[in-house]
Amino acid sequence: MLTVYGSSSSGNCWKPAQILELAGRDYRWVEIDSMAGATRTPEFLALNPNGKVPVVVLEDGAVLTESNAILAHFAEGTDYLPPPGLARTRVLEWLFFEQYSHEPYVAVARSWIAVQKAKARYADRLPELWERGHKALAVMERRLAAAPFLTDSGLTIADLALFAYTHVAEEGEFDLSPYPAIRAWLDRVAAHPGVRRLDRLRR
Amino acid sequence: MLTVYGSSSSGNCWKPAQILELAGRDYRWVEIDSMAGATRTPEFLALNPNGKVPVVVLEDGAVLTESNAILAHFAEGTDYLPPPGLARTRVLEWLFFEQYSHEPYVAVARSWIAVQKAKARYADRLPELWERGHKALAVMERRLAAAPFLTDSGLTIADLALFAYTHVAEEGEFDLSPYPAIRAWLDRVAAHPGVRRLDRLRR
Repeated sequence: MLTVYGSSSSGNCWKPAQILELAGRDYRWVEIDSMAGATRTPEFLALNPNGKVPVVVLEDGAVLTESNAILAHFAEGTDYLPPPGLARTRVLEWLFFEQYSHEPYVAVARSWIAVQKAKARYADRLPELWERGHKALAVMERRLAAAPFLTDSGLTIADLALFAYTHVAEEGEFDLSPYPAIRAWLDRVAAHPGVRRLDRLRR
Repeated sequence: MLTVYGSSSSGNCWKPAQILELAGRDYRWVEIDSMAGATRTPEFLALNPNGKVPVVVLEDGAVLTESNAILAHFAEGTDYLPPPGLARTRVLEWLFFEQYSHEPYVAVARSWIAVQKAKARYADRLPELWERGHKALAVMERRLAAAPFLTDSGLTIADLALFAYTHVAEEGEFDLSPYPAIRAWLDRVAAHPGVRRLDRLRR
């Protein structure tokens, strides 16, 4: 059986669990407490030298890393990832946008405030994260004001990747009230059969 | 004809020029001076609401963003991107590693020091970038000490994406002497027919 190593509080770790659930694949979840140093042990670094969760171990022992690569791996051949060509490129654009322009701000602010409970310690750095996170949210809002999903291919892993931390952005003190199109999209994604919020996913 | 909007000093903008050259595609280059605000004009934001280069405009007017999505787009069907399956997932893992764990440190330190000439202004932030950049380089060294390229598929866009900023890392004051496998790989990639250093690419 597949094994997913992840932290339950992490949106990046929600991604493999969510795509496996949508793909109807069974898996075993191994909880990793990265705050307690569990991603820095020799055993874990042997799995992923980059010391990050999630990690997926396939039935044959092959190890997958990088949450968005894992999304693409299990979405291959499903409606959640269009075939190669411009439609697939559109999905990849949002996956890279998520990891470069969104996650480092929206996810990190939430981690500092709601997971690590360390808002005071990061008080001088949070304003920059909020500013850059809002810039990413504005890019999403612009697209979603004009279309139901991030690409023209219906719900894809682009939407799942951005849903991961956007639906819990308020835990990072991002006020989503200025983004009506994002809020409608969050409801639309959450209503898709099989999609569950971070705190409701079976693991 | 294809149009690439980019900054000549940027490794991210080197990527579309390099893959188009390898794929034998002709293109027009439009120099964008992002430091002078050229990515924040209404005209540029209409092309890419995220305000970043590179941007590629296809013959039919379709607009591509995100350097690694652009690499994948033009590598489709070539030896630089294996077909869907585990081999392609391995390439995607490195593409996401590059944008999340390498570029924000290795590229940004170089930009501050060698492009913006602003080392003094960022003196308090550079040590963190060097520390995290060396962590990424150590992950690459570990792989490259055991294999000639980043994946088992020969030279792919994974190698091109990491070559982009690693071959100019010393401009960000990253000493590569502790990484013999990276240095040998840099020579191997640079020796591949059609591959050119950032400062030698026709544009």
